[in-house]
Amino acid sequence: MNKGLLVVVSGPSGVGKGTICNALRSQYEDLVYSVSATTRLMREGEVEGVNYFFLSKEDFQEKIADGAFLEWAEVYGNFYGTPKWVIDAELTAGNNVLLEIDMQGALQVKKAYPESVLVFILPPSEEELAKRLSGRGTDSAEVIAKRLACWQQEKAMLKHYDYAVVNDTVAQAVEKISRIITAEECSVKRMEN
Amino acid sequence: MNKGLLVVVSGPSGVGKGTICNALRSQYEDLVYSVSATTRLMREGEVEGVNYFFLSKEDFQEKIADGAFLEWAEVYGNFYGTPKWVIDAELTAGNNVLLEIDMQGALQVKKAYPESVLVFILPPSEEELAKRLSGRGTDSAEVIAKRLACWQQEKAMLKHYDYAVVNDTVAQAVEKISRIITAEECSVKRMEN
Repeated sequence: MNKGLLVVVSGPSGVGKGTICNALRSQYEDLVYSVSATTRLMREGEVEGVNYFFLSKEDFQEKIADGAFLEWAEVYGNFYGTPKWVIDAELTAGNNVLLEIDMQGALQVKKAYPESVLVFILPPSEEELAKRLSGRGTDSAEVIAKRLACWQQEKAMLKHYDYAVVNDTVAQAVEKISRIITAEECSVKRMEN
Repeated sequence: MNKGLLVVVSGPSGVGKGTICNALRSQYEDLVYSVSATTRLMREGEVEGVNYFFLSKEDFQEKIADGAFLEWAEVYGNFYGTPKWVIDAELTAGNNVLLEIDMQGALQVKKAYPESVLVFILPPSEEELAKRLSGRGTDSAEVIAKRLACWQQEKAMLKHYDYAVVNDTVAQAVEKISRIITAEECSVKRMEN
């Protein structure tokens, strides 16, 4: 059996990665979303291994030391991380795994998983990106200006990606990513034996 | 504007390349079929540049000497060839060009056009390939045996191809090739600037 694909969807802040990934998840059941690990307490209704893998701080820090996370962060005293062991198990089982991740993180994934498929989501235009960032209403003008300045640098990272998909509409972007996955599954260089 | 893609569909005799390419042509109007050149006389109803480019034998042989054909053959005293200049004009105009070609020819195309996309059509199984070759009713048992022996060697050429598509059904194979074309159009390494 061929291993699954690790599909990494990334792009600048405000480009619509989250919306695209949610649509991909709901339309393609054979696309597994990687479950994160955390040290925060389990909330009512949450299920171990579905919402998160719940770890003690000691366990989490030990795993950081072991390099067991693709990436991790501390937020308000709790740790969150993307566990390599979860991704590895899914890929070995032949499942395609979807990761939505920021641009720095995406390049780290490519280093750890050279076979991963990096998809850069592009805004239809820079004007549209500015409009979307303002439209969210969550960020100050200053933060938006900073994000747009970042975009000028982020654009230069496109060359490290495998594919670029313009987010004209969510449906079109989702269809293109689905087609990229089919093509990668037909790729001769991925075939074993 | 990005250049068009040169999509080469190839595979063993009897695998169904022709049926797949005809279906692709009829379903995807943006996929241009490369028009061949010939020295045979124009028949009634044929149109220059649509059915063939009609050349004199002198012109044809001069073009052979110039390396202007991707491949050519002499059949019953007439010459037939795939003109590079036609392919180049279509690709430069941004059109995707479809070529259906035997396996030796496909590897020659890859040498002349390293950016070309080579698709290997695989039979669902070797039993099925044998069945299809017999089912055509055009070949003797001896010819079929020779073709199946060829297949054992042709399989080893898969590694030189970009993609492998199993011809389970024509519709599925056509859909996969269409998806491969979309993915290649999103490929970062193809993008100019």
